[in-house]
Amino acid sequence: MPQLLKVQNFNVSADGFGSSEDQTLERPFGSAFDPQRIFAWAFATAGWPGRTDGGGSRGLDDHLIRDFSHNIGAEIMGRNKFGHQRGPWQDHEWKGWWGDEPPFHTPVFVLTHHPRPSITLSDTTFHFVSGEPADVLARAKEAADGKDVRLGGGVSTVRQYLDAGLVDTLHVAVSPIKTGTGLRLWDSPDDLRDRYHLDVVPSPSGVTHHLFWRK
Amino acid sequence: MPQLLKVQNFNVSADGFGSSEDQTLERPFGSAFDPQRIFAWAFATAGWPGRTDGGGSRGLDDHLIRDFSHNIGAEIMGRNKFGHQRGPWQDHEWKGWWGDEPPFHTPVFVLTHHPRPSITLSDTTFHFVSGEPADVLARAKEAADGKDVRLGGGVSTVRQYLDAGLVDTLHVAVSPIKTGTGLRLWDSPDDLRDRYHLDVVPSPSGVTHHLFWRK
Repeated sequence: MPQLLKVQNFNVSADGFGSSEDQTLERPFGSAFDPQRIFAWAFATAGWPGRTDGGGSRGLDDHLIRDFSHNIGAEIMGRNKFGHQRGPWQDHEWKGWWGDEPPFHTPVFVLTHHPRPSITLSDTTFHFVSGEPADVLARAKEAADGKDVRLGGGVSTVRQYLDAGLVDTLHVAVSPIKTGTGLRLWDSPDDLRDRYHLDVVPSPSGVTHHLFWRK
Repeated sequence: MPQLLKVQNFNVSADGFGSSEDQTLERPFGSAFDPQRIFAWAFATAGWPGRTDGGGSRGLDDHLIRDFSHNIGAEIMGRNKFGHQRGPWQDHEWKGWWGDEPPFHTPVFVLTHHPRPSITLSDTTFHFVSGEPADVLARAKEAADGKDVRLGGGVSTVRQYLDAGLVDTLHVAVSPIKTGTGLRLWDSPDDLRDRYHLDVVPSPSGVTHHLFWRK
């Protein structure tokens, strides 16, 4: 089986923004982008990581949330997904947003021009790497040991890998809320139709799932 | 995590039939029920078991096909899913429709009033069991070792477990083809709305996925 590079459960606003640019420690997605509203569909599912009450929906949204870790052996993420610092690393105590049990459970390759030693938290290890997208993908595939690689975002990282022609499948959840500003994934999902097949799947929750696979 | 009893990728005609009654060796679903047409949506996916050409769709239908084995530790099936014989077992050479590599990869509990020794084919073992639905489910859960149990069908078995109130989730794919006769799962998917939440999800392939979870 070929190893795929997959975007999964990547969430954008109705107008195509994945975050706003003024990221801070308090607002990981920036001031215009309220994750409580944008990700509401995901938090409502039984499969949301961290849910412990036994409740939640088990319909379409839940199937897609659960797909997050299936056959995934590594993740690639942009530096701004890992943290809010810019430039050379200053706060070496910063170990990501996710606490002692990050939800990845695999090697994670963080794209940065600034070297830093790897960090292991539970069964997730963050490696800080620079290089061309294809080279980082080759490292991630090797670490994934035959499984697929997740491209975790954010927007700039997804666009960089799309531009390099390296993404095999994308699941993008479009929330029914406009933010009006921020980092834009696309003007329209149709932007990718020249290179990808697309299933547009409206969910009863109000989010519309977009499932792309390479032509 | 509680262990669930799940119906997955169970396929019925537009008029609610899961097979026709005149099952034979040549027509496992009976004469009115052409699997090539009813299951066409599934055969078109990249995840269909046995596909080796590297092609196939990777959209909604594929996500649901791939969900078949996720976190499943055992299956329960009716005798008529296992084979075409009725009454006491006569052809002991019969080992199911699936050849030497059945697609289950777990213990499978076949409901029958007629005892027969267990059969192991590759990593699937078929056990032939009688008893009340709840008792067979308890055995299957124990064998599943903490994972969920799939209820594999056919129609009579699904209805028996629904009537006993033992099914936690159902994914039923309704194909856009009427058969006009056979074993009926329901008059309408709405029959289950008193006991289940329901996401109705049309696929671009023409099949409509119905995702039920217990209220």
